Amino acid sequence: MTRGSLLFGGVITLGALGCGGTEEKKAAITGAADAGSIPPDTATPAIPKVSDFPYEQHLPAGYRLDVAAVQEPAYHGYYNGGCCHGAYSALVKHLADTVGAPFDQLPIDFGKFGGGGIAGYGSICGAVLGGVLVVNMVVAKTAARTAMLTDLMRWYEGTAFPMYVPAANDSTEANVTLDFSAANIAHLQVVPRSHLCHSSVSSWCAARGVAANGGDKLARCSRLTADVAGKVATMINAYLASGTYAAGALDATSSSCMGCHPASSHAKPVAAGMRCDVCHSDKVSHHP
Amino acid sequence: MTRGSLLFGGVITLGALGCGGTEEKKAAITGAADAGSIPPDTATPAIPKVSDFPYEQHLPAGYRLDVAAVQEPAYHGYYNGGCCHGAYSALVKHLADTVGAPFDQLPIDFGKFGGGGIAGYGSICGAVLGGVLVVNMVVAKTAARTAMLTDLMRWYEGTAFPMYVPAANDSTEANVTLDFSAANIAHLQVVPRSHLCHSSVSSWCAARGVAANGGDKLARCSRLTADVAGKVATMINAYLASGTYAAGALDATSSSCMGCHPASSHAKPVAAGMRCDVCHSDKVSHHP
Repeated sequence: MTRGSLLFGGVITLGALGCGGTEEKKAAITGAADAGSIPPDTATPAIPKVSDFPYEQHLPAGYRLDVAAVQEPAYHGYYNGGCCHGAYSALVKHLADTVGAPFDQLPIDFGKFGGGGIAGYGSICGAVLGGVLVVNMVVAKTAARTAMLTDLMRWYEGTAFPMYVPAANDSTEANVTLDFSAANIAHLQVVPRSHLCHSSVSSWCAARGVAANGGDKLARCSRLTADVAGKVATMINAYLASGTYAAGALDATSSSCMGCHPASSHAKPVAAGMRCDVCHSDKVSHHP
Repeated sequence: MTRGSLLFGGVITLGALGCGGTEEKKAAITGAADAGSIPPDTATPAIPKVSDFPYEQHLPAGYRLDVAAVQEPAYHGYYNGGCCHGAYSALVKHLADTVGAPFDQLPIDFGKFGGGGIAGYGSICGAVLGGVLVVNMVVAKTAARTAMLTDLMRWYEGTAFPMYVPAANDSTEANVTLDFSAANIAHLQVVPRSHLCHSSVSSWCAARGVAANGGDKLARCSRLTADVAGKVATMINAYLASGTYAAGALDATSSSCMGCHPASSHAKPVAAGMRCDVCHSDKVSHHP
């Protein structure tokens, strides 16, 4: 725990004593300062509210997330509500534990809708979506937020998953036939090339010769959830350290696609930041 | 405004008087009942909190959203923060205006990250994502929530957009070359076939011969945002009326794909709820 988070912890304790609600406290502080009869108590700020968004303003100076402390809960959280829940709940709970309000006022189960690419639909990877929601929660600068979200999706598309090796296997993990140990996990990795759950899961399962609804798929996605949650924590730390963030460039193949298909074209304009060749594999050669 | 929402409005007014925070009030009520000296005041429930999730429990009996009242703000909201913001803010503000807490405690700008398929990346349509977040916020039953989210994405894929005709064009709407009037809008419609922004926007712009970064694209997506927000309100109302929700079936073509590619396959298993032939157009004939 950082010095800053300890200070914030003290504020949270004051709030928990129940001495009036946030609005009341704010009014009291403001009123006292306005009247000039009582010196303003700068050591007792109002408790941050969920509506005081984004939440970067509520982080103590020098605050950083503990990446390792996020990953193991993300892995276990997967088995308690899916990939989006794993990433979202691990990050939000860590922020609640180390920062307090307003993170501790958020519903920890909010991410359960996002599993399997939102309700099992195969859309955006739920772990990525959970991370997207938390980045959005924290980062105040629009340009940096946009760059971080772009970078998270590009990083996911180009990273060989799974990487994470749990400290302890989840008690509900069962029917795993592949070897996910530290010594062997590199041999199980596949680069998804797409940020969509459907493509990411289907291609991994096909490469490994396992079902998309079995224990190996769960073992893969639970570890991937820890990988994504850890990446999000690392990205937020990088942003907090510098106050800026720059996304990696689009790959060379997709960049060449945009030469003929810019958004400004009136013929076949393309609106996207993702790589092109994963879905449009028929356009990679002999095109146009 | 329904009778139920008026009653709830009264509760909100009590809260706004600043007579102690939610936690304090809860403790006071509980304490009084426990001591037995003061009769419990059943007419003054604690103000719902953001963490009291999902929020169906806070809706007055018989509550319904006003679909028409959501659409126009969603359309204008698009021009103030994108498609996800348009849908999210219109729905959340309507819920805040008619229900109060906890909707009025949520950050109204939370959806600005989602525009253009999340940070312009072309992933899930932001209007759909905004709707997904609100459905998730309200619906308490997991099976119904899953069915609603599936149905929303399937409905989007199969619906000819845009449909909505604003009561008044947004003051910032400019450089529109196509005729979006009620008399002509049907001639502008295209079925996106994909719930992804990239495919939805690119195919519409190509069909209409307009740029993906010009005024016509904005005019299309702002009206689509109203369409999606209205659909979400209608879906939530249907769920509230019946307490259940059943998603429409997968299309016949995709169902036949799943015959050879079930999730349980160890060869080429498919994990998805979306239609197959949009991306895998090369598999529709002469396959395998």
